[in-house]
Amino acid sequence: MILTVTLNTALDITYRVRALTPHASHRVTEMAERPGGKGLNVARVLAALGHEVTVTGFTGGATGRALREQLAHTPGVVDALVPVGGATRRTIAVVDETTGDTTQLNEPGPTVTPAEWAAFQEAYGELLRSASAVALCGSLPPGVPVGAYAGLVRAARAQAVPVLLDTSGEPLRRGVAARPDIVKPNAEELAELTGSHEPWQATRDARRRGANTVVASLGAEGLLAVNAEGHWRATPPHRVRGNPTGAGDSVVAGLLSGLVDQLPWPRRLARAVALSAATVLSPVAGEFDRRTYEELLDRVAVTGDATAA
Amino acid sequence: MILTVTLNTALDITYRVRALTPHASHRVTEMAERPGGKGLNVARVLAALGHEVTVTGFTGGATGRALREQLAHTPGVVDALVPVGGATRRTIAVVDETTGDTTQLNEPGPTVTPAEWAAFQEAYGELLRSASAVALCGSLPPGVPVGAYAGLVRAARAQAVPVLLDTSGEPLRRGVAARPDIVKPNAEELAELTGSHEPWQATRDARRRGANTVVASLGAEGLLAVNAEGHWRATPPHRVRGNPTGAGDSVVAGLLSGLVDQLPWPRRLARAVALSAATVLSPVAGEFDRRTYEELLDRVAVTGDATAA
Repeated sequence: MILTVTLNTALDITYRVRALTPHASHRVTEMAERPGGKGLNVARVLAALGHEVTVTGFTGGATGRALREQLAHTPGVVDALVPVGGATRRTIAVVDETTGDTTQLNEPGPTVTPAEWAAFQEAYGELLRSASAVALCGSLPPGVPVGAYAGLVRAARAQAVPVLLDTSGEPLRRGVAARPDIVKPNAEELAELTGSHEPWQATRDARRRGANTVVASLGAEGLLAVNAEGHWRATPPHRVRGNPTGAGDSVVAGLLSGLVDQLPWPRRLARAVALSAATVLSPVAGEFDRRTYEELLDRVAVTGDATAA
Repeated sequence: MILTVTLNTALDITYRVRALTPHASHRVTEMAERPGGKGLNVARVLAALGHEVTVTGFTGGATGRALREQLAHTPGVVDALVPVGGATRRTIAVVDETTGDTTQLNEPGPTVTPAEWAAFQEAYGELLRSASAVALCGSLPPGVPVGAYAGLVRAARAQAVPVLLDTSGEPLRRGVAARPDIVKPNAEELAELTGSHEPWQATRDARRRGANTVVASLGAEGLLAVNAEGHWRATPPHRVRGNPTGAGDSVVAGLLSGLVDQLPWPRRLARAVALSAATVLSPVAGEFDRRTYEELLDRVAVTGDATAA
């Protein structure tokens, strides 16, 4: 199975209101609620592609129970979340029907105790035994040490499980130094990590910091990838308009799917770009438009060289 | 015991953010979560005054479970809520730390089925047998007939249980016609019911529509009351600044508390005004500042005549 780790899971709530006006009272006209956090989105996309997926991370409180109930109704996703005393955070996206704009309210998440962090690491070590690949996704909840991902990367490498890291800031900086197989920063995370705003330059810089492969996601412009085997650019055939939330998570799902299917890098990148574009067409993170995905798969342009970058 | 009915219970969530900006992403710096809906606020105030209180109404889903868990930790309040298939609504109050303004997002609540409404009416009839008074509070959830409160008023009167109605719009109009012992409209509800913006005039008009006693809550200006025994005005000794949310619910609690304690009307009104002002000083609906309450109790000015109005 593929393992995805979401240390800061969330109950993602979407509200539609006629028009959001500060200081006014609003009647919510439509609402939706879904298990959230990057690793859970990645898992839902992987399961929809037919992979066996197990999710772990932390969950707690009434919001955590609601999340797990909904996860139990997600075919193909096995719940191996670790309980914590605090409550899983909610994220609220308020969609203004008049402007189409979204206003986001994010709870900070529960504070994880040292004992809970130790329990997670033990559970993670066990899960790695049957994992063909692992993705470490998203922000760290309060209480988890900033070097957490570096430790989780090392544990995966010690068991020879390919590991992908998708986070930002200091957790990314420390995690990269532990030599993950793949990191997938977006343009902003890449610039923050390397100080460079030139994408090829920054992608190569990031690789020198320790990652075996760096895949930079550049939104509508597709992906850049650099590793010891070569360097590639993968671009969608046309710009897709829609909701970009979850597009990066679908890139991660595409890369992992291509990895366990042992595809060559150009085909992995094509899968990731097609999935990402098909996710933009879906109103919800963690879901994608299958027809668009299949249609785009052969139309993603991958250019580059299978030589050392 | 005193029975309070909240057909549209809520999980009340308060978020503090640095500044609310539409279309931006916000980190919630502080959050609180409480059982909500007018009747639950009334019940918490009554319990804090030392009364035995039972709450009923509808509850369901993960949010309903969270609400009941929190209710179980509220001393003196007995949970007799009736389960529904849908989920209890959330209300979200977003407090802007920079301006102090509050922006409100209210979910509509679950749709109640005819079978659930029938189950509630049966449970309500049973609960009335041991009730010394009942308060019917707040809006109706989708699916409950607009004449619901009229039926609940009649059922209470048939069992000779004094009944107070606190709602608005068409449910208030129909409920008043069923001759409740007390209605407690605010200025806006009173004007909507009677078409008059002159408070004494409107209070008398409302009484002619069927209520035995009309207590109009006029915010910082206190209360007007009219019944067969007389008419009174009760005003706090000074204006209190704070959070007016829940002030009306504390008026209801004060009136019911005075009723079961068999206080004469002027003292019931003084209790209601003092509780209401002490609630404005508390950051949260359903709670009040006890020292302010006790200090104000003898300082509320009640003027009027114990003769027919």
